[in-house]
Amino acid sequence: MSELVDRAAAREAAQQLMKVALGEAEADLAIVNGSIVNVYTGEVLTGDTVLIKGDRIAYVGKNAQQSISPATRVIDASGKTLVPGFIDGHTHLLNGLYSISEVLRYAMKGGTTTIITETMEFGFCLGYQGVIEFVRSARNQPIKCLATVPPLVSTSPVAKEHALTGGELRRLLRTKGVIGLGESFWGPVVDGDGVTLSLIAETVRLGKIVDGHTAGAKGNKLQAYASLGVSSCHEPTTAEEVLERLRLGMFVLVREGETRRETEAIARIKDENIDLRRLILASDGLGPWQLVADGYMEFIVQKAIKLGFDPVLAIQMATINVAQRFGLDDFIGGIAPGKYADIVIIPDLDTIQPEYVISNGQVVARNGELLVQPRKHTYPKSTQNTIRLTRDFGADDFAVRIDGNHRKAKVRVIDQVTYLVTREAILELPALDGLVASDTSQDVIKVAAIERSHWTDKTFTGFVRGMGFKRGAIATSTAWDTCDMVVVGVSEADMAQAVNRIRELNGGIVVCAGGRILAEMALPIGGLITMLPMETISETLHHIQQTAAQLGCTQQDIRPTLSVLTTGGIPFLRICEAGLVDIRQNRFVDLLVG
Amino acid sequence: MSELVDRAAAREAAQQLMKVALGEAEADLAIVNGSIVNVYTGEVLTGDTVLIKGDRIAYVGKNAQQSISPATRVIDASGKTLVPGFIDGHTHLLNGLYSISEVLRYAMKGGTTTIITETMEFGFCLGYQGVIEFVRSARNQPIKCLATVPPLVSTSPVAKEHALTGGELRRLLRTKGVIGLGESFWGPVVDGDGVTLSLIAETVRLGKIVDGHTAGAKGNKLQAYASLGVSSCHEPTTAEEVLERLRLGMFVLVREGETRRETEAIARIKDENIDLRRLILASDGLGPWQLVADGYMEFIVQKAIKLGFDPVLAIQMATINVAQRFGLDDFIGGIAPGKYADIVIIPDLDTIQPEYVISNGQVVARNGELLVQPRKHTYPKSTQNTIRLTRDFGADDFAVRIDGNHRKAKVRVIDQVTYLVTREAILELPALDGLVASDTSQDVIKVAAIERSHWTDKTFTGFVRGMGFKRGAIATSTAWDTCDMVVVGVSEADMAQAVNRIRELNGGIVVCAGGRILAEMALPIGGLITMLPMETISETLHHIQQTAAQLGCTQQDIRPTLSVLTTGGIPFLRICEAGLVDIRQNRFVDLLVG
Repeated sequence: MSELVDRAAAREAAQQLMKVALGEAEADLAIVNGSIVNVYTGEVLTGDTVLIKGDRIAYVGKNAQQSISPATRVIDASGKTLVPGFIDGHTHLLNGLYSISEVLRYAMKGGTTTIITETMEFGFCLGYQGVIEFVRSARNQPIKCLATVPPLVSTSPVAKEHALTGGELRRLLRTKGVIGLGESFWGPVVDGDGVTLSLIAETVRLGKIVDGHTAGAKGNKLQAYASLGVSSCHEPTTAEEVLERLRLGMFVLVREGETRRETEAIARIKDENIDLRRLILASDGLGPWQLVADGYMEFIVQKAIKLGFDPVLAIQMATINVAQRFGLDDFIGGIAPGKYADIVIIPDLDTIQPEYVISNGQVVARNGELLVQPRKHTYPKSTQNTIRLTRDFGADDFAVRIDGNHRKAKVRVIDQVTYLVTREAILELPALDGLVASDTSQDVIKVAAIERSHWTDKTFTGFVRGMGFKRGAIATSTAWDTCDMVVVGVSEADMAQAVNRIRELNGGIVVCAGGRILAEMALPIGGLITMLPMETISETLHHIQQTAAQLGCTQQDIRPTLSVLTTGGIPFLRICEAGLVDIRQNRFVDLLVG
Repeated sequence: MSELVDRAAAREAAQQLMKVALGEAEADLAIVNGSIVNVYTGEVLTGDTVLIKGDRIAYVGKNAQQSISPATRVIDASGKTLVPGFIDGHTHLLNGLYSISEVLRYAMKGGTTTIITETMEFGFCLGYQGVIEFVRSARNQPIKCLATVPPLVSTSPVAKEHALTGGELRRLLRTKGVIGLGESFWGPVVDGDGVTLSLIAETVRLGKIVDGHTAGAKGNKLQAYASLGVSSCHEPTTAEEVLERLRLGMFVLVREGETRRETEAIARIKDENIDLRRLILASDGLGPWQLVADGYMEFIVQKAIKLGFDPVLAIQMATINVAQRFGLDDFIGGIAPGKYADIVIIPDLDTIQPEYVISNGQVVARNGELLVQPRKHTYPKSTQNTIRLTRDFGADDFAVRIDGNHRKAKVRVIDQVTYLVTREAILELPALDGLVASDTSQDVIKVAAIERSHWTDKTFTGFVRGMGFKRGAIATSTAWDTCDMVVVGVSEADMAQAVNRIRELNGGIVVCAGGRILAEMALPIGGLITMLPMETISETLHHIQQTAAQLGCTQQDIRPTLSVLTTGGIPFLRICEAGLVDIRQNRFVDLLVG
């Protein structure tokens, strides 16, 4: 964060700030008459004026008049409450289909002034350069976006082959805007994944933070992972899990985002009478629908308050606690002299509806309207050719062969338990001429993962239950934690057409049936994101969802459901270009079990 | 190459730690059956075993049996309480006359396992190399000692000439064992001292911490100083001052040391019902007497508890809160997997009498007896020739001349208010033959500051009231925050002899009267410290004090009283080789005012 200031300007800015505090120079902006939430002491204080010079707070107190001149912009916050700008301590900005300028619009409107994001999505498809590209896109924006280095933990052999090297890690950790090592799923690490272990040990050695991912871990295994120096987790789903992690000295980020909404489930932690300085609210990624409908961190903080968290605590959980976790508390997280002037003015402590959002001393939004636009980043050509298939696919590419002349096959099927969690089901499927077929009467259709980033064309086809499709296919290049794309379908020809269309689009989500493309969205940048406006993305997604539903799809939100089929981070049975993976055992398992 | 070895070692250690946590390798040390203070949640938990491998904690919990083999050392802590090793977040190890190995003996006995110290004392007399020398002395010790870079803020023109450069600052901040910028008195900075301001701005820019020193500051001036990014203060003397600083987002270190004992005065802050995560206990320097009589951080924590602080809060104030302040909480400050195994076993939560002290996984003390000796550092010759006077002094060097043939002179006298604080007194002193004389009937004697580090011989002589001396003189080379030595005396000849003896000794404290040396202690290293055992230092100091008392000295502890006469950090009237300094106005003032 300090690197955001260059040496030449630092001293001059410091001197100016000091003069404003001393009443010897005029403030650029003064906020008067508001109640101020002091996140350091937990108090709400009245009667203080906040003086801002440039991008920083110069003074917070009652003796401010001398620094207010006719040139000073004055905001009268009578009857209102000032809180520090919200910080999302864990998200996936590259996971929502939108470009950075689109998500920042929603962040800024709602009072989020700092975002710390994972970058593995670009990492898998573009490697080291992908992370650098994200960091570039995040620079010179009206709010602060910092990145973590992706350890690129994957179930996929191709992805593992392209994991980050120690040298790349060190270069990235020295890059302006990079703050530490991102999440690495605990299972493989505890099982002895040497590459990831080395990245973690090296990051700790360099004094940088290591984010954790401990879904379902407990007891000795959780502690083994923590012992490496992993100092946070954003995966607990119960108050017990939160407590276990807090006791281990971890910062715990409670999610209220697209893939998980857990504040309610953990809310009783507030009644435990324990120190909650390490409890944090975060999104872990927000989809276009959510951003448009609910907003960003303001929604999450509001929800915590509705669930009975003391408002000051809820605000601490989205400001100072996060800043402290990342060692950024000298710069952000509170309304105090020397900190960046990131301030949100809300009607009252219980109502997180920003009337003013100030970021880096600039009023960037007022009553939900943007006054400053985020910078549109120009993504270079090299980020727009990541669907690296050597050829078009055909129906045959999705054949599942079985030896002999069986009429039935006993198959290990990915069984959707929720829209994210799967388990294994052993089912009998019809077979004909040495080929195993889908069986819509059992709600079982084909699913394939295709390596799409490294010109290998490697493909594995299996079966999934619970998608609901009666015909057609849907494919997406947004698969998590691999270099893969994912396609599910009743018709192999439709599956092939969807994949080929994604190849044409250089990335996207495509729905096909009966040899026709019914709905699509191009995601040309990394095969993951588009420059379209958020609202257009949201509407197009609705169209894709409705089209899928017309084909029988019963999943409420097919995009994330498809995307997570490849991740090693969510239990239990997953797929990648090399086969089916049992996440509990961290190993490949056979498709045919008969 | 060594970097490669370190890296490989880090990974191997991480793997070992994980195996112990998983029950797949044996712990080196297990602490069983104790109650454990969890500083993260504020709980005291029972029934957990702490497993230690090498210098780290591997596991804390109930499922530890598998990692305990016959080769594991087991400490049964039944009925006892485990707390994290104490951290002194602000001290002056070079200010107590002792070498590092001597003070570490006392630290280790009492459960202090990390010390963060200022280094300006070596900085003033040895510059950049002095700081490096301290850092070397602190390496490979049984406990952790980290240093701050001294900004070398001074009232002295010679010292200012030799202030740290930006380049030296950057080199030092990159040195292993250096953690940030040390205290810089707020007054000169707020008054526009460009050199210090640049050092502060550059340190903040580099993302390192900046320690503050805000004695007496409040309101706009305090905020002006804080706005620079100064993020701590150890000077508040009242609960109001503590609260004002906490509200500014500063970490506040409450002192219970040699020069100040303030825990009692600020204790009512505990009743304010505010968040105290940024409140810290520290020593700010302990003298030999105190260390021998009371001990180190264990005494300070005990005192806080006696004053009514909740014991868990008092322990947090000496452990996690300090670790958090310095961004060291991934490594120290709590009993949790991955942290350094720095653990103190005490009889119960209210009784801070360490029965075991474990540092870096090693039992270093038991029931107040050291089991491991600190490393005796060999200070190079270059640190032992810092009394750089070009010649012996004579009585004439301390003459105070007045024009004309006056019988009396109106003089600005340093008036001792307490043993540390002075004020200005305008007094009439006798004059004869153009020379102003001491007047023991008014308890006024001479005081001189002599620049002793840079071969300038520059000397200024003034007067001080309240020392009590009826005859003789006492000199010390331990003057604060300048390159000076200080001498006070009734007899100019005795003053000269004391100074000349210090020159012979290459540093020290010397008492003379009637042309004889009555008591002395050589301090050859930097003119500041000796290799003598702590107990010998303490006894010799007693002898010096008694000898001074026999000469009439009424000061309770003459050494610190003399040493602080040169500092810009304590109000109000001070002396340096260039004259008298009014600290409030930050300017030189005339000696003769008639």
